[in-house]
Amino acid sequence: MLELIAFDADDTLWHSEILYVNSQERILEILSPYSEKELTRQELYRAELPNLSIYGYGIKGFALSMIEAAIRLSDSKIRGSEVEQIIDLAKDMMKAPVRLLEGAAEAVEALSNSYPLMLITKGDLFDQERKITQSGLAAYFKHIEIVSEKTVDVYRSVLAKHGVDPSGFLMIGNSPRSDILPVIELGARAVLIPYHTTWVHEAADAVGEAPMNCIELEHIGLLPAFIEQLAQDSQVGAR
Amino acid sequence: MLELIAFDADDTLWHSEILYVNSQERILEILSPYSEKELTRQELYRAELPNLSIYGYGIKGFALSMIEAAIRLSDSKIRGSEVEQIIDLAKDMMKAPVRLLEGAAEAVEALSNSYPLMLITKGDLFDQERKITQSGLAAYFKHIEIVSEKTVDVYRSVLAKHGVDPSGFLMIGNSPRSDILPVIELGARAVLIPYHTTWVHEAADAVGEAPMNCIELEHIGLLPAFIEQLAQDSQVGAR
Repeated sequence: MLELIAFDADDTLWHSEILYVNSQERILEILSPYSEKELTRQELYRAELPNLSIYGYGIKGFALSMIEAAIRLSDSKIRGSEVEQIIDLAKDMMKAPVRLLEGAAEAVEALSNSYPLMLITKGDLFDQERKITQSGLAAYFKHIEIVSEKTVDVYRSVLAKHGVDPSGFLMIGNSPRSDILPVIELGARAVLIPYHTTWVHEAADAVGEAPMNCIELEHIGLLPAFIEQLAQDSQVGAR
Repeated sequence: MLELIAFDADDTLWHSEILYVNSQERILEILSPYSEKELTRQELYRAELPNLSIYGYGIKGFALSMIEAAIRLSDSKIRGSEVEQIIDLAKDMMKAPVRLLEGAAEAVEALSNSYPLMLITKGDLFDQERKITQSGLAAYFKHIEIVSEKTVDVYRSVLAKHGVDPSGFLMIGNSPRSDILPVIELGARAVLIPYHTTWVHEAADAVGEAPMNCIELEHIGLLPAFIEQLAQDSQVGAR
Protein backbone atom coordinates (compact mmCIF):
# COMPACT_ATOMS: atom_id res chain seq x y z
CA MET A 1 0.00 0.00 0.00
CA LEU A 2 1.32 3.44 -0.90
CA GLU A 3 1.29 5.81 2.05
CA LEU A 4 3.38 8.60 0.57
CA ILE A 5 4.56 9.41 -2.95
CA ALA A 6 7.53 11.75 -3.24
CA PHE A 7 8.84 13.69 -6.20
CA ASP A 8 12.27 15.05 -6.88
CA ALA A 9 12.05 18.54 -8.40
CA ASP A 10 15.02 19.56 -10.59
CA ASP A 11 14.80 17.71 -13.92
CA THR A 12 11.87 15.64 -12.65
CA LEU A 13 9.21 18.35 -12.45
CA TRP A 14 11.06 21.27 -14.03
CA HIS A 15 14.11 21.87 -16.19
CA SER A 16 17.33 22.56 -14.30
CA GLU A 17 20.41 20.83 -15.72
CA ILE A 18 19.93 22.55 -19.07
CA LEU A 19 20.62 25.90 -17.35
CA TYR A 20 24.02 24.60 -16.21
CA VAL A 21 24.78 23.09 -19.62
CA ASN A 22 23.92 26.31 -21.41
CA SER A 23 25.98 28.41 -19.00
CA GLN A 24 28.97 26.11 -19.45
CA GLU A 25 28.69 26.50 -23.21
CA ARG A 26 28.83 30.27 -22.76
CA ILE A 27 31.83 29.93 -20.44
CA LEU A 28 33.61 27.82 -23.09
CA GLU A 29 33.18 30.82 -25.42
CA ILE A 30 34.39 33.30 -22.81
CA LEU A 31 37.49 31.16 -22.17
CA SER A 32 38.19 30.38 -25.85
CA PRO A 33 41.03 32.96 -26.08
CA TYR A 34 42.83 31.08 -23.28
CA SER A 35 42.04 27.40 -23.60
CA GLU A 36 40.93 24.83 -26.16
CA LYS A 37 37.26 23.92 -25.79
CA GLU A 38 37.46 20.21 -25.00
CA LEU A 39 40.11 20.77 -22.34
CA THR A 40 38.02 23.61 -20.90
CA ARG A 41 34.94 21.39 -20.76
CA GLN A 42 36.81 18.72 -18.78
CA GLU A 43 38.37 21.27 -16.45
CA LEU A 44 35.06 22.95 -15.70
CA TYR A 45 33.64 19.61 -14.58
CA ARG A 46 36.75 18.76 -12.62
CA ALA A 47 36.69 22.12 -10.85
CA GLU A 48 33.22 21.50 -9.42
CA LEU A 49 33.70 18.12 -7.76
CA PRO A 50 36.21 18.90 -4.99
CA ASN A 51 34.22 22.03 -4.16
CA LEU A 52 30.92 20.20 -3.57
CA SER A 53 32.12 19.23 -0.10
CA ILE A 54 32.84 22.90 0.65
CA TYR A 55 29.97 24.69 -1.12
CA GLY A 56 27.25 22.03 -1.39
CA TYR A 57 24.99 21.94 -4.46
CA GLY A 58 23.55 24.87 -6.35
CA ILE A 59 24.19 27.77 -8.65
CA LYS A 60 26.30 29.94 -6.36
CA GLY A 61 28.86 27.20 -5.70
CA PHE A 62 28.80 26.37 -9.41
CA ALA A 63 29.59 30.01 -10.24
CA LEU A 64 32.48 30.17 -7.77
CA SER A 65 33.88 26.92 -9.21
CA MET A 66 33.57 28.25 -12.75
CA ILE A 67 35.45 31.42 -11.80
CA GLU A 68 38.15 29.34 -10.12
CA ALA A 69 38.49 27.16 -13.23
CA ALA A 70 38.59 30.24 -15.46
CA ILE A 71 41.47 31.66 -13.45
CA ARG A 72 43.36 28.38 -13.70
CA LEU A 73 42.66 27.77 -17.41
CA SER A 74 43.68 31.33 -18.33
CA ASP A 75 46.83 31.05 -16.26
CA SER A 76 45.45 33.92 -14.16
CA LYS A 77 45.11 36.16 -17.26
CA ILE A 78 41.31 36.23 -17.17
CA ARG A 79 40.02 39.83 -17.24
CA GLY A 80 37.67 41.41 -14.76
CA SER A 81 35.08 41.91 -17.49
CA GLU A 82 35.18 38.19 -18.29
CA VAL A 83 34.72 37.19 -14.65
CA GLU A 84 31.81 39.61 -14.58
CA GLN A 85 30.22 37.74 -17.51
CA ILE A 86 30.40 34.50 -15.51
CA ILE A 87 28.75 36.22 -12.52
CA ASP A 88 26.05 37.57 -14.82
CA LEU A 89 25.40 34.05 -16.14
CA ALA A 90 24.92 32.86 -12.55
CA LYS A 91 22.52 35.70 -11.81
CA ASP A 92 20.55 34.88 -14.93
CA MET A 93 20.32 31.25 -13.76
CA MET A 94 19.09 32.36 -10.33
CA LYS A 95 16.43 34.47 -12.02
CA ALA A 96 15.47 32.03 -14.78
CA PRO A 97 11.73 31.37 -14.95
CA VAL A 98 10.73 27.86 -13.88
CA ARG A 99 9.89 25.72 -16.93
CA LEU A 100 7.83 22.67 -15.98
CA LEU A 101 8.46 19.42 -17.85
CA GLU A 102 5.65 18.47 -20.18
CA GLY A 103 3.00 16.50 -18.30
CA ALA A 104 4.47 17.25 -14.86
CA ALA A 105 1.68 19.52 -13.61
CA GLU A 106 -1.00 17.07 -14.82
CA ALA A 107 0.69 14.05 -13.19
CA VAL A 108 1.14 15.83 -9.85
CA GLU A 109 -2.41 17.13 -9.86
CA ALA A 110 -3.88 13.72 -10.74
CA LEU A 111 -1.89 11.87 -8.07
CA SER A 112 -2.64 14.49 -5.42
CA ASN A 113 -6.29 13.46 -5.60
CA SER A 114 -5.48 9.94 -4.38
CA TYR A 115 -2.25 10.13 -2.35
CA PRO A 116 -0.40 12.44 0.00
CA LEU A 117 2.50 13.86 -2.00
CA MET A 118 5.90 15.09 -0.87
CA LEU A 119 8.43 17.19 -2.72
CA ILE A 120 12.00 16.39 -1.74
CA THR A 121 14.70 18.38 -3.42
CA LYS A 122 18.34 19.00 -2.71
CA GLY A 123 20.37 22.11 -3.23
CA ASP A 124 20.28 25.74 -2.39
CA LEU A 125 17.46 26.61 0.04
CA PHE A 126 16.84 30.10 -1.33
CA ASP A 127 16.83 29.00 -4.98
CA GLN A 128 14.70 25.91 -4.38
CA GLU A 129 12.09 27.92 -2.45
CA ARG A 130 11.90 30.41 -5.30
CA LYS A 131 11.39 27.64 -7.84
CA ILE A 132 8.77 25.83 -5.74
CA THR A 133 6.78 29.05 -5.41
CA GLN A 134 7.11 29.90 -9.11
CA SER A 135 6.21 26.36 -10.21
CA GLY A 136 2.63 26.79 -9.04
CA LEU A 137 2.72 23.19 -7.76
CA ALA A 138 3.34 23.84 -4.05
CA ALA A 139 -0.30 23.41 -3.05
CA TYR A 140 -0.37 19.80 -4.32
CA PHE A 141 2.30 18.71 -1.83
CA LYS A 142 1.47 17.85 1.75
CA HIS A 143 5.16 18.01 2.69
CA ILE A 144 8.01 19.96 1.13
CA GLU A 145 11.54 19.02 2.15
CA ILE A 146 14.63 20.89 1.00
CA VAL A 147 17.75 18.96 1.97
CA SER A 148 21.44 19.52 1.38
CA GLU A 149 22.09 15.92 0.24
CA LYS A 150 19.94 12.88 -0.54
CA THR A 151 21.49 9.99 1.33
CA VAL A 152 19.94 6.89 2.88
CA ASP A 153 20.13 8.60 6.28
CA VAL A 154 18.39 11.70 5.02
CA TYR A 155 15.52 9.68 3.50
CA ARG A 156 15.31 7.61 6.69
CA SER A 157 14.99 10.67 8.90
CA VAL A 158 12.47 12.38 6.60
CA LEU A 159 10.27 9.25 6.59
CA ALA A 160 10.59 8.90 10.37
CA LYS A 161 9.57 12.54 10.81
CA HIS A 162 6.37 11.95 8.87
CA GLY A 163 5.75 8.51 10.40
CA VAL A 164 5.92 6.64 7.08
CA ASP A 165 7.35 3.13 6.74
CA PRO A 166 9.70 2.57 3.77
CA SER A 167 7.37 -0.19 2.55
CA GLY A 168 4.70 2.46 1.93
CA PHE A 169 7.00 4.97 0.27
CA LEU A 170 7.53 5.55 -3.45
CA MET A 171 10.09 8.03 -4.79
CA ILE A 172 10.04 9.47 -8.31
CA GLY A 173 13.09 11.13 -9.80
CA ASN A 174 15.64 11.42 -12.58
CA SER A 175 18.85 10.85 -10.63
CA PRO A 176 19.99 7.28 -9.91
CA ARG A 177 22.42 8.58 -7.28
CA SER A 178 20.03 10.84 -5.40
CA ASP A 179 16.50 9.62 -6.08
CA ILE A 180 16.75 5.88 -6.70
CA LEU A 181 19.65 4.03 -5.06
CA PRO A 182 19.29 5.39 -1.49
CA VAL A 183 15.53 4.81 -1.58
CA ILE A 184 15.95 1.21 -2.76
CA GLU A 185 18.58 0.63 -0.09
CA LEU A 186 16.07 1.79 2.49
CA GLY A 187 13.58 -0.85 1.32
CA ALA A 188 11.22 1.56 -0.45
CA ARG A 189 10.26 1.70 -4.11
CA ALA A 190 11.39 4.11 -6.83
CA VAL A 191 10.48 5.21 -10.32
CA LEU A 192 13.31 6.50 -12.49
CA ILE A 193 12.28 8.97 -15.17
CA PRO A 194 15.50 9.91 -16.96
CA TYR A 195 16.01 13.50 -18.06
CA HIS A 196 17.58 13.92 -21.46
CA THR A 197 20.73 15.37 -19.89
CA THR A 198 22.18 14.10 -16.62
CA TRP A 199 25.09 15.73 -14.83
CA VAL A 200 27.82 13.06 -14.75
CA HIS A 201 27.98 13.42 -10.96
CA GLU A 202 24.35 12.28 -10.60
CA ALA A 203 24.54 9.34 -12.99
CA ALA A 204 25.99 6.87 -10.40
CA ASP A 205 28.24 4.08 -11.68
CA ALA A 206 26.54 1.34 -9.83
CA VAL A 207 23.11 1.17 -11.41
CA GLY A 208 23.74 -1.29 -14.27
CA GLU A 209 20.62 -3.39 -14.42
CA ALA A 210 17.56 -1.89 -12.85
CA PRO A 211 17.50 -2.91 -9.19
CA MET A 212 14.54 -4.64 -7.56
CA ASN A 213 11.74 -2.30 -6.57
CA CYS A 214 12.66 0.20 -9.26
CA ILE A 215 11.09 0.66 -12.62
CA GLU A 216 11.93 3.15 -15.32
CA LEU A 217 9.38 5.26 -17.16
CA GLU A 218 10.13 7.20 -20.27
CA HIS A 219 7.97 10.16 -19.42
CA ILE A 220 6.21 11.64 -16.38
CA GLY A 221 2.93 11.51 -18.31
CA LEU A 222 2.97 7.72 -17.88
CA LEU A 223 3.13 7.98 -14.09
CA PRO A 224 -0.55 8.18 -13.01
CA ALA A 225 -1.50 5.06 -15.02
CA PHE A 226 1.54 3.20 -13.69
CA ILE A 227 0.68 4.01 -10.09
CA GLU A 228 -2.96 3.04 -10.58
CA GLN A 229 -1.76 -0.33 -11.90
CA LEU A 230 0.67 -0.67 -9.00
CA ALA A 231 -2.14 -0.03 -6.49
CA GLN A 232 -4.38 -2.64 -8.19
CA ASP A 233 -1.58 -5.19 -8.25
CA SER A 234 -0.87 -4.77 -4.55
CA GLN A 235 -4.57 -5.16 -3.74
CA VAL A 236 -4.56 -8.45 -5.67
CA GLY A 237 -1.37 -9.47 -3.88
CA ALA A 238 -2.91 -8.67 -0.50
CA ARG A 239 -5.86 -11.07 -1.01
CA MET B 1 3.35 29.94 30.00
CA LEU B 2 6.33 29.16 27.81
CA GLU B 3 5.60 26.31 25.41
CA LEU B 4 8.64 26.71 23.16
CA ILE B 5 11.90 28.65 23.44
CA ALA B 6 13.75 29.31 20.21
CA PHE B 7 17.31 30.41 19.60
CA ASP B 8 18.86 32.13 16.63
CA ALA B 9 22.26 30.61 15.83
CA ASP B 10 24.71 32.97 14.06
CA ASP B 11 26.05 35.50 16.59
CA THR B 12 23.60 34.25 19.22
CA LEU B 13 25.11 30.80 19.88
CA TRP B 14 28.28 31.00 17.81
CA HIS B 15 30.43 33.65 16.16
CA SER B 16 29.59 34.41 12.53
CA GLU B 17 29.67 38.11 11.62
CA ILE B 18 33.31 38.35 12.66
CA LEU B 19 34.19 36.00 9.78
CA TYR B 20 32.63 38.44 7.31
CA VAL B 21 34.26 41.44 8.95
CA ASN B 22 37.69 39.81 8.88
CA SER B 23 37.30 38.76 5.24
CA GLN B 24 36.27 42.27 4.27
CA GLU B 25 39.36 43.64 5.98
CA ARG B 26 41.49 41.27 3.88
CA ILE B 27 39.62 42.34 0.73
CA LEU B 28 40.35 45.99 1.56
CA GLU B 29 44.04 45.03 1.49
CA ILE B 30 43.70 43.10 -1.77
CA LEU B 31 41.98 46.08 -3.40
CA SER B 32 44.28 48.73 -1.93
CA PRO B 33 46.22 49.12 -5.21
CA TYR B 34 42.97 50.10 -6.93
CA SER B 35 40.82 51.93 -4.43
CA GLU B 36 41.06 53.98 -1.26
CA LYS B 37 40.03 51.97 1.81
CA GLU B 38 37.06 53.96 3.07
CA LEU B 39 35.50 54.05 -0.38
CA THR B 40 36.14 50.33 -0.78
CA ARG B 41 34.46 49.59 2.53
CA GLN B 42 31.33 51.47 1.52
CA GLU B 43 31.25 49.86 -1.92
CA LEU B 44 31.63 46.34 -0.53
CA TYR B 45 28.57 46.88 1.64
CA ARG B 46 26.64 48.51 -1.20
CA ALA B 47 27.47 45.60 -3.52
CA GLU B 48 25.82 43.05 -1.23
CA LEU B 49 22.41 44.59 -0.73
CA PRO B 50 20.91 44.43 -4.24
CA ASN B 51 22.21 40.87 -4.58
CA LEU B 52 20.44 39.57 -1.46
CA SER B 53 17.22 39.26 -3.45
CA ILE B 54 19.06 37.17 -6.06
CA TYR B 55 21.45 35.10 -3.94
CA GLY B 56 19.82 35.02 -0.51
CA TYR B 57 21.99 35.08 2.62
CA GLY B 58 25.28 33.29 3.16
CA ILE B 59 28.93 33.08 2.33
CA LYS B 60 28.69 32.07 -1.33
CA GLY B 61 26.51 35.02 -2.26
CA PHE B 62 28.79 37.25 -0.18
CA ALA B 63 31.82 35.98 -2.14
CA LEU B 64 30.14 36.59 -5.51
CA SER B 65 29.20 40.10 -4.40
CA MET B 66 32.75 40.80 -3.22
CA ILE B 67 34.16 39.68 -6.58
CA GLU B 68 31.64 41.86 -8.38
CA ALA B 69 32.62 44.86 -6.23
CA ALA B 70 36.31 44.14 -6.78
CA ILE B 71 35.81 44.22 -10.55
CA ARG B 72 33.95 47.52 -10.33
CA LEU B 73 36.35 49.18 -7.84
CA SER B 74 39.40 48.14 -9.89
CA ASP B 75 37.77 49.38 -13.08
CA SER B 76 37.97 45.77 -14.31
CA LYS B 77 41.77 45.71 -13.74
CA ILE B 78 41.61 43.14 -10.91
CA ARG B 79 43.92 40.19 -11.59
CA GLY B 80 42.97 36.54 -11.66
CA SER B 81 45.24 35.86 -8.71
CA GLU B 82 43.46 38.53 -6.68
CA VAL B 83 40.03 37.12 -7.48
CA GLU B 84 41.41 33.75 -6.41
CA GLN B 85 42.36 35.23 -3.04
CA ILE B 86 38.76 36.33 -2.54
CA ILE B 87 37.53 32.82 -3.41
CA ASP B 88 40.03 31.35 -0.97
CA LEU B 89 38.75 33.66 1.76
CA ALA B 90 35.22 32.35 1.10
CA LYS B 91 36.40 28.75 1.25
CA ASP B 92 38.16 29.46 4.54
CA MET B 93 34.92 30.92 5.89
CA MET B 94 32.97 27.81 4.79
CA LYS B 95 35.51 25.64 6.59
CA ALA B 96 36.00 27.79 9.68
CA PRO B 97 35.53 25.85 12.92
CA VAL B 98 32.42 26.78 14.88
CA ARG B 99 33.30 28.96 17.87
CA LEU B 100 30.55 29.01 20.47
CA LEU B 101 29.87 32.23 22.33
CA GLU B 102 30.90 32.10 25.96
CA GLY B 103 28.11 30.65 28.07
CA ALA B 104 26.02 29.53 25.07
CA ALA B 105 26.41 25.79 25.59
CA GLU B 106 25.64 26.09 29.31
CA ALA B 107 22.53 28.22 28.74
CA VAL B 108 21.16 25.86 26.07
CA GLU B 109 21.83 22.80 28.17
CA ALA B 110 20.25 24.31 31.28
CA LEU B 111 17.09 25.44 29.47
CA SER B 112 16.74 22.14 27.61
CA ASN B 113 16.06 20.47 30.98
CA SER B 114 12.89 22.52 31.47
CA TYR B 115 11.62 23.54 28.04
CA PRO B 116 11.38 22.23 24.48
CA LEU B 117 13.95 24.21 22.50
CA MET B 118 14.04 25.14 18.83
CA LEU B 119 16.92 26.41 16.72
CA ILE B 120 15.80 28.71 13.94
CA THR B 121 18.49 30.05 11.70
CA LYS B 122 18.48 31.70 8.31
CA GLY B 123 21.01 31.42 5.53
CA ASP B 124 22.72 28.78 3.48
CA LEU B 125 21.30 25.30 4.16
CA PHE B 126 24.58 23.47 3.60
CA ASP B 127 26.64 25.82 5.75
CA GLN B 128 24.08 26.01 8.56
CA GLU B 129 23.82 22.20 8.74
CA ARG B 130 27.58 21.95 8.98
CA LYS B 131 27.70 24.48 11.80
CA ILE B 132 24.82 22.89 13.70
CA THR B 133 26.58 19.52 13.57
CA GLN B 134 29.94 20.97 14.56
CA SER B 135 28.46 23.02 17.40
CA GLY B 136 27.70 19.89 19.40
CA LEU B 137 24.40 21.50 20.46
CA ALA B 138 22.00 19.75 18.04
CA ALA B 139 20.82 17.18 20.58
CA TYR B 140 19.45 19.89 22.90
CA PHE B 141 16.98 21.08 20.29
CA LYS B 142 13.65 19.37 19.73
CA HIS B 143 13.19 21.22 16.43
CA ILE B 144 15.76 22.64 14.03
CA GLU B 145 14.53 25.00 11.33
CA ILE B 146 16.74 26.43 8.61
CA VAL B 147 14.90 29.13 6.72
CA SER B 148 15.85 31.47 3.89
CA GLU B 149 14.41 34.58 5.59
CA LYS B 150 12.94 35.37 9.01
CA THR B 151 9.72 37.22 8.35
CA VAL B 152 6.47 37.33 10.33
CA ASP B 153 5.00 34.82 7.84
CA VAL B 154 7.90 32.43 8.28
CA TYR B 155 7.62 32.52 12.09
CA ARG B 156 3.84 32.11 11.83
CA SER B 157 4.13 29.01 9.65
CA VAL B 158 6.88 27.46 11.79
CA LEU B 159 4.77 27.92 14.93
CA ALA B 160 1.68 26.54 13.17
CA LYS B 161 3.66 23.50 12.03
CA HIS B 162 4.60 22.72 15.62
CA GLY B 163 1.21 23.65 17.03
CA VAL B 164 2.54 26.44 19.26
CA ASP B 165 0.58 29.61 19.97
CA PRO B 166 2.57 32.87 19.77
CA SER B 167 1.61 33.59 23.38
CA GLY B 168 3.69 30.58 24.44
CA PHE B 169 6.67 31.37 22.24
CA LEU B 170 9.90 33.12 23.21
CA MET B 171 12.63 33.93 20.68
CA ILE B 172 16.23 34.70 21.60
CA GLY B 173 18.58 36.36 19.16
CA ASN B 174 20.99 39.15 18.31
CA SER B 175 19.28 40.67 15.27
CA PRO B 176 16.46 43.19 15.77
CA ARG B 177 15.39 42.75 12.14
CA SER B 178 15.33 38.95 12.05
CA ASP B 179 14.90 37.73 15.62
CA ILE B 180 12.98 40.41 17.48
CA LEU B 181 10.65 42.62 15.41
CA PRO B 182 8.80 39.88 13.46
CA VAL B 183 8.34 37.85 16.65
CA ILE B 184 6.93 40.82 18.55
CA GLU B 185 4.63 41.61 15.63
CA LEU B 186 3.29 38.06 15.85
CA GLY B 187 2.40 38.60 19.52
CA ALA B 188 5.19 36.46 20.94
CA ARG B 189 8.02 37.48 23.25
CA ALA B 190 11.68 38.08 22.45
CA VAL B 191 15.02 38.48 24.18
CA LEU B 192 17.63 40.57 22.38
CA ILE B 193 21.23 39.70 23.18
CA PRO B 194 23.35 42.05 21.08
CA TYR B 195 26.52 40.76 19.49
CA HIS B 196 29.45 43.14 19.62
CA THR B 197 29.32 43.56 15.83
CA THR B 198 26.06 43.72 13.88
CA TRP B 199 25.86 43.80 10.10
CA VAL B 200 24.20 47.12 9.24
CA HIS B 201 21.56 45.20 7.27
CA GLU B 202 20.40 43.36 10.40
CA ALA B 203 20.34 46.35 12.69
CA ALA B 204 16.86 47.58 11.61
CA ASP B 205 16.11 51.28 11.75
CA ALA B 206 12.83 50.92 13.50
CA VAL B 207 13.78 49.62 16.90
CA GLY B 208 14.31 52.83 18.82
CA GLU B 209 12.96 52.17 22.28
CA ALA B 210 12.66 48.55 23.26
CA PRO B 211 9.22 47.37 22.17
CA MET B 212 6.75 45.70 24.50
CA ASN B 213 7.37 42.02 25.07
CA CYS B 214 11.07 42.38 24.39
CA ILE B 215 13.86 42.66 26.87
CA GLU B 216 17.56 43.02 26.27
CA LEU B 217 20.20 40.97 28.04
CA GLU B 218 23.87 41.78 27.95
CA HIS B 219 25.05 38.20 27.80
CA ILE B 220 23.60 34.76 27.09
CA GLY B 221 24.85 33.60 30.49
CA LEU B 222 22.08 35.71 32.05
CA LEU B 223 19.37 33.86 30.13
CA PRO B 224 18.52 30.88 32.36
CA ALA B 225 17.98 33.07 35.42
CA PHE B 226 15.90 35.52 33.41
CA ILE B 227 13.64 32.77 32.09
CA GLU B 228 13.23 31.26 35.54
CA GLN B 229 12.11 34.66 36.78
CA LEU B 230 9.76 35.05 33.81
CA ALA B 231 8.16 31.68 34.54
CA GLN B 232 7.68 32.58 38.22
CA ASP B 233 6.17 35.97 37.31
CA SER B 234 3.66 34.42 34.93
CA GLN B 235 2.66 31.92 37.59
CA VAL B 236 2.02 34.78 39.98
CA GLY B 237 0.12 36.61 37.22
CA ALA B 238 -1.99 33.56 36.52
CA ARG B 239 -3.23 33.24 40.08
